[in-house]
Amino acid sequence: MSKKSKPVLLTGASGNLGRMLARELAAQGYTLRLTDLTPFPDQVPEGASFTKADLNDGVTILQLAEGCQAILHFGGASTDQPFEVVLGPNLRGLYHIYEAARREGARVLFASSNHSIGFHERPQGNQAKLEADCEFRPDSFYGLSKAYGELMGRLYWDKHGVENLNVRIGSSFPEPVDARMLATWLSYADLARLCIAFVEAPKVGHAVVWGASNNAASYWGGDHRDRIGWQPQDSADAFAAKVGQITSGNPVTERYQGGGYTAVGYSRDGFSPRDAFTLED
Amino acid sequence: MSKKSKPVLLTGASGNLGRMLARELAAQGYTLRLTDLTPFPDQVPEGASFTKADLNDGVTILQLAEGCQAILHFGGASTDQPFEVVLGPNLRGLYHIYEAARREGARVLFASSNHSIGFHERPQGNQAKLEADCEFRPDSFYGLSKAYGELMGRLYWDKHGVENLNVRIGSSFPEPVDARMLATWLSYADLARLCIAFVEAPKVGHAVVWGASNNAASYWGGDHRDRIGWQPQDSADAFAAKVGQITSGNPVTERYQGGGYTAVGYSRDGFSPRDAFTLED
Amino acid sequence: MSKKSKPVLLTGASGNLGRMLARELAAQGYTLRLTDLTPFPDQVPEGASFTKADLNDGVTILQLAEGCQAILHFGGASTDQPFEVVLGPNLRGLYHIYEAARREGARVLFASSNHSIGFHERPQGNQAKLEADCEFRPDSFYGLSKAYGELMGRLYWDKHGVENLNVRIGSSFPEPVDARMLATWLSYADLARLCIAFVEAPKVGHAVVWGASNNAASYWGGDHRDRIGWQPQDSADAFAAKVGQITSGNPVTERYQGGGYTAVGYSRDGFSPRDAFTLED
Amino acid sequence: MSKKSKPVLLTGASGNLGRMLARELAAQGYTLRLTDLTPFPDQVPEGASFTKADLNDGVTILQLAEGCQAILHFGGASTDQPFEVVLGPNLRGLYHIYEAARREGARVLFASSNHSIGFHERPQGNQAKLEADCEFRPDSFYGLSKAYGELMGRLYWDKHGVENLNVRIGSSFPEPVDARMLATWLSYADLARLCIAFVEAPKVGHAVVWGASNNAASYWGGDHRDRIGWQPQDSADAFAAKVGQITSGNPVTERYQGGGYTAVGYSRDGFSPRDAFTLED
Amino acid sequence: MSKKSKPVLLTGASGNLGRMLARELAAQGYTLRLTDLTPFPDQVPEGASFTKADLNDGVTILQLAEGCQAILHFGGASTDQPFEVVLGPNLRGLYHIYEAARREGARVLFASSNHSIGFHERPQGNQAKLEADCEFRPDSFYGLSKAYGELMGRLYWDKHGVENLNVRIGSSFPEPVDARMLATWLSYADLARLCIAFVEAPKVGHAVVWGASNNAASYWGGDHRDRIGWQPQDSADAFAAKVGQITSGNPVTERYQGGGYTAVGYSRDGFSPRDAFTLED
Amino acid sequence: MSKKSKPVLLTGASGNLGRMLARELAAQGYTLRLTDLTPFPDQVPEGASFTKADLNDGVTILQLAEGCQAILHFGGASTDQPFEVVLGPNLRGLYHIYEAARREGARVLFASSNHSIGFHERPQGNQAKLEADCEFRPDSFYGLSKAYGELMGRLYWDKHGVENLNVRIGSSFPEPVDARMLATWLSYADLARLCIAFVEAPKVGHAVVWGASNNAASYWGGDHRDRIGWQPQDSADAFAAKVGQITSGNPVTERYQGGGYTAVGYSRDGFSPRDAFTLED
Repeated sequence: MSKKSKPVLLTGASGNLGRMLARELAAQGYTLRLTDLTPFPDQVPEGASFTKADLNDGVTILQLAEGCQAILHFGGASTDQPFEVVLGPNLRGLYHIYEAARREGARVLFASSNHSIGFHERPQGNQAKLEADCEFRPDSFYGLSKAYGELMGRLYWDKHGVENLNVRIGSSFPEPVDARMLATWLSYADLARLCIAFVEAPKVGHAVVWGASNNAASYWGGDHRDRIGWQPQDSADAFAAKVGQITSGNPVTERYQGGGYTAVGYSRDGFSPRDAFTLED
Repeated sequence: MSKKSKPVLLTGASGNLGRMLARELAAQGYTLRLTDLTPFPDQVPEGASFTKADLNDGVTILQLAEGCQAILHFGGASTDQPFEVVLGPNLRGLYHIYEAARREGARVLFASSNHSIGFHERPQGNQAKLEADCEFRPDSFYGLSKAYGELMGRLYWDKHGVENLNVRIGSSFPEPVDARMLATWLSYADLARLCIAFVEAPKVGHAVVWGASNNAASYWGGDHRDRIGWQPQDSADAFAAKVGQITSGNPVTERYQGGGYTAVGYSRDGFSPRDAFTLED
Repeated sequence: MSKKSKPVLLTGASGNLGRMLARELAAQGYTLRLTDLTPFPDQVPEGASFTKADLNDGVTILQLAEGCQAILHFGGASTDQPFEVVLGPNLRGLYHIYEAARREGARVLFASSNHSIGFHERPQGNQAKLEADCEFRPDSFYGLSKAYGELMGRLYWDKHGVENLNVRIGSSFPEPVDARMLATWLSYADLARLCIAFVEAPKVGHAVVWGASNNAASYWGGDHRDRIGWQPQDSADAFAAKVGQITSGNPVTERYQGGGYTAVGYSRDGFSPRDAFTLED
Repeated sequence: MSKKSKPVLLTGASGNLGRMLARELAAQGYTLRLTDLTPFPDQVPEGASFTKADLNDGVTILQLAEGCQAILHFGGASTDQPFEVVLGPNLRGLYHIYEAARREGARVLFASSNHSIGFHERPQGNQAKLEADCEFRPDSFYGLSKAYGELMGRLYWDKHGVENLNVRIGSSFPEPVDARMLATWLSYADLARLCIAFVEAPKVGHAVVWGASNNAASYWGGDHRDRIGWQPQDSADAFAAKVGQITSGNPVTERYQGGGYTAVGYSRDGFSPRDAFTLED
Repeated sequence: MSKKSKPVLLTGASGNLGRMLARELAAQGYTLRLTDLTPFPDQVPEGASFTKADLNDGVTILQLAEGCQAILHFGGASTDQPFEVVLGPNLRGLYHIYEAARREGARVLFASSNHSIGFHERPQGNQAKLEADCEFRPDSFYGLSKAYGELMGRLYWDKHGVENLNVRIGSSFPEPVDARMLATWLSYADLARLCIAFVEAPKVGHAVVWGASNNAASYWGGDHRDRIGWQPQDSADAFAAKVGQITSGNPVTERYQGGGYTAVGYSRDGFSPRDAFTLED
Repeated sequence: MSKKSKPVLLTGASGNLGRMLARELAAQGYTLRLTDLTPFPDQVPEGASFTKADLNDGVTILQLAEGCQAILHFGGASTDQPFEVVLGPNLRGLYHIYEAARREGARVLFASSNHSIGFHERPQGNQAKLEADCEFRPDSFYGLSKAYGELMGRLYWDKHGVENLNVRIGSSFPEPVDARMLATWLSYADLARLCIAFVEAPKVGHAVVWGASNNAASYWGGDHRDRIGWQPQDSADAFAAKVGQITSGNPVTERYQGGGYTAVGYSRDGFSPRDAFTLED
């Protein structure tokens, strides 16, 4: 029996993933509260309402969550940015989301990222894939904000019993565009199914899931996907011929799981600071 | 041969630990830059200067660090506080400290806390003590800010080669005052020796050390103290008779390593929210 | 004899009503200072100047008002919004407007709203229409900011002799678009005439006027329009056939004078909180 | 049967009235949450906890109110101050208090003030005393913030069914110190009884009560005190001989109910602006 | 031998002058770091990177300057604006630029303006042209911010040996559009050559240069251009027939070197305040 | 005939100079408006009122200045401080003071400082003393804010006819305490007389005066003191024997007129950055 009687709050609704999820979940009959700092660019789907709000404005975020059963938190800066840009929406914003969830007895799906562990090396040959309970190795201020978010979930579970699922999204685009994405790609359909599985799961606790489709080249191994009964159904493998030769040529980028984010401003091991610098890469 | 030729920056200098460290390190001949948001309450020691500054003011923090070999970062909120109070000094402030260290090629000793892992249960009987590479289990916004700081150290080491030592301080007071401190106490003298060992160590990398004296009842096992050649010389054991019966009576407090911090606002498992509430406990 | 020798300050000049008023008053020969946070979208009329300014910036607002005889205050949030969005322009901004008026010996026309009294019920059958000296019953944060503005006018009149006219605008659009507007519509031409009557009136004191055209279905009775010698000349009655059947179907909306604003988030009397929720309705 | 099972939140706890109420209500067996921006200067009473918090920090205010049955809102600026000083605690703060009350289903006692109606003239001879449903005539930014608070109560009652009692406090001091207080004095004991009556009342709705003891010289007549079954038991009359000759000599002060607040900066009717100026009077 | 091995930071890169300089310097082989608050509207040139950043964010500005040899500071408000708009980017921003230069041992070209000396009268007939060491006579908040910038350069040279060139730009547009520009015009090509001469100069010290082409009608005489070996090669003279009759008709504008900026709000000498008022002239 | 009919606004009233001036001017019969961010520590003198206000709050500053004939601006940071501390009170605050003066037709005495020209060398032997129309050579952010203030006076005089006197105060203390003060000392009595001469002067224009007593060792020559008919009557000479041997031993300090301020952080000419560092010197 579906849990469609209570609304779901979706933050970051005006972004690419948010728009796709709004469309898919509404089509499945969920009642949605959509929010973003920028206006929703599409027609608001049947059964959904949109409210423009800032993640820094906690009281408004708490109001938006009233009566919700679940929060899909895709809001905040979604690429690497100067620290001050990340601070408000990604750190303070997370606090507001978790406070809202605690008050409502709602669960949280947090759109975490592979960049929370991006400085793990990519497995070579027969090397073991990375387990979800590995140590955090953030590769950027953005990645650090994602690690912070996962730990806030840990705190709210330990202290208040707020359930949360932390999806370390690899690369969620219409299709893979370079060799790295053969490992990291997450199809839109797999992401939508994951979100629904999360909402419908009987029990979640504090869980971590690798957000990638069923890719042969994946860097990632065991996680908590059984908790929600999700299995990806798509795969990047079919794109191997098309994009398998597209690499960056940057040795830092190619060595670590976080890819280009690890190389932005990288200054260790004889690299000249700023050789590869740009905060907008 | 000592590294006394370049200054050491000490933040949080006007606090109890800061004042003690200023006194001890100055007495050992180190050149100190002291800073705090509140005026230094003592006579500034010979060889030290004091500058009032806000950890939110990054450019000033960077200036204070110029030419320093090491930063002893004891600044920021040092107890649990509402999130907004923690945000500026403990999250933004850390960024400023690490940026300063990166620019100067300095190393950072971060005054982390057992509250970054406070929701681990206390070991009972023959149970294993907790290793330093355990997962984070913060017990408060304060503890979460400490986990964040350790991960920022991880990032700056991975990306920029900034060395950092994260000392998960237990309870650093003149002497233990309750039963829990028989496990967690860190004597002032042991802390001062630890700071000096850190400054003098040939190589630190990214390391984590339990900040406790040589206590029989300790919860904590292996860490990276060999990197800096530090061994605590004091012990809480002598205070067992005096304070060993002083416990909180709160089952949450007594179950978890973080003690009272875990119980502030605890609302899981049938506990009524706010039963034990006070943010100033 | 007209009072055209001294300029009139018009805030909110880039909004729909502001643009219309700028055009009409300039055509009548008034010297206008136009201001808004967003650029003026039209050609600035002959005899007018435009300055981009924030109502939060009091010193600049005071400069803009220098030498003015009257301020037409149409600036600030003009729909319901989260409290934090209303606070700056609608509360702080009002203070800046009234301080400017006090200093200049200018009078203020404040674009108040029916939403300051929106929780009065609509009169049924032979029930009396609402008098302007009724108690405030705001229906939203927006409506509350309008009540606040009227009371600030009361204070500045009582304490400093600053004259002010508070126009509780119903619905000022090119033409009525639903049944409620048959009661609440204010034509652009009637509004422009009202503004001119205000500027030209020999004495205003502290006055309140219902901002509606000559509508048979009006909810509103006596007010202070005689002070300025204004009578509406247009009427919504001619649109009755066209829009008279267009109602909301929401019982809260249809019961109270404030219409849809009363229903946004309404949670009394067995209504489930958030049934009708959207802050952008 | 007393309502002592759920806590009561008291803001402004560190002020004179707050300290008195904390002491009295704790002595009566109420569970109290105390909060203020400044530390609580006394021993925190048995059954009470104190949390330092800023009324501007909405999320923290909402947390403090969790599980409470009632909020006694005595926080914010309690004298006339420049507008910018009043804005945060007295306007934004009120919003946080009412949002908290709405979420918790709690009722609010708002410490309003006679300064919300201070520009009504004092009744002379046989003139009628002022009724509680009179129009607002604020005499200062402080008084305007109190009118705003009463109207926010009106809004939250109309829209969300949040019960609230608005006490227009006259002069609550240990004893009267001038002639005006023979009319306006509210004894500490009467105020404490009023607060308890409010907490215990079966139903409050939106009500307004004059906050004065049983004074023969009172300016004030009918109000809603029957809703809570409160009657003042003390009287200023016994102080008439002692302080009855102490008046200000300022004709504005002596004419209006708000007393000295009306005269601060008064500039009407031939008064030279600033003659009597000081914001700290 | 060219100094192309180290990057050059260009602020205000998205403005008209910034875009032109980015194009010209990149074409000459310089490695550029471009930054602006608004996105770069063109294709980022080969050898350049663009980072969106706020001049108020000092730590990010310091990062952008790392490893640079020179900073071309064209960022900040570039026309007269209300004081609050100028404060952040033009005053605080300058501090961040000079701190960055000090740390990097870089030199600064500051895009100053004739408006820092705009209240000097235009020379008539045989009157001497104005020397660069004249006293400052700013004509606007904008001009005052430029004087401030020149003095910050003076301070950083005297105290820290930071070299800086202050270019008092006249009117840098594709071509002159009125009579005043026959005196003040600076061609794009002359400006680009000036910037390159600055970067390449062996020694600059603290210098001031008039930013005008080789115009017969120029108001300006001796300066420090020999320090960098720059001579303008273009001239406004060829435009004399086309634009020589285009004047403002405003006696203030035509009397002073700063032109229209001096007349905005001018209120001396019998001028009625605000006669000529608009902050956007 | 004295100008005592209109009040004088004194900012920074709670500082050492402010308290002395409040006492002296009140004793001479001037009506004073005193203001400061910190409470006035003394009994407010007869004929004076005190209002706590922040120089950042422009609207309040403008209110305080209403009806005043003169502003004695001693407020703001009075020693060298990190830039962010100086920005608000010393830069924004100055704007508020000058706007207030313009509106009121008041004149401004600005407590400038020798630190606006501190990097001029001290004259040796027969070298000429420094003239008041010398170029600015600020020695600190504090000194730079003073140069900025003098130039704001220049702007307001040129554009709006606001008269202003800029007093470059040397060292105003009860008596000289080191050798440098034999040159720079300004007695309290001389300062008080200067302020009164300024208020009473028929015409001031834009003027600069060296704020030193009649000291044989003075660094300073011609200025505009004749405009106000002021001559210092005290002298540091009598203290030569007592303090003439007290020097700093720092060659930077002893070379430049600004003394210790020039040496704080001095990093030119082979000086190691931060050798002499402390922002609180």
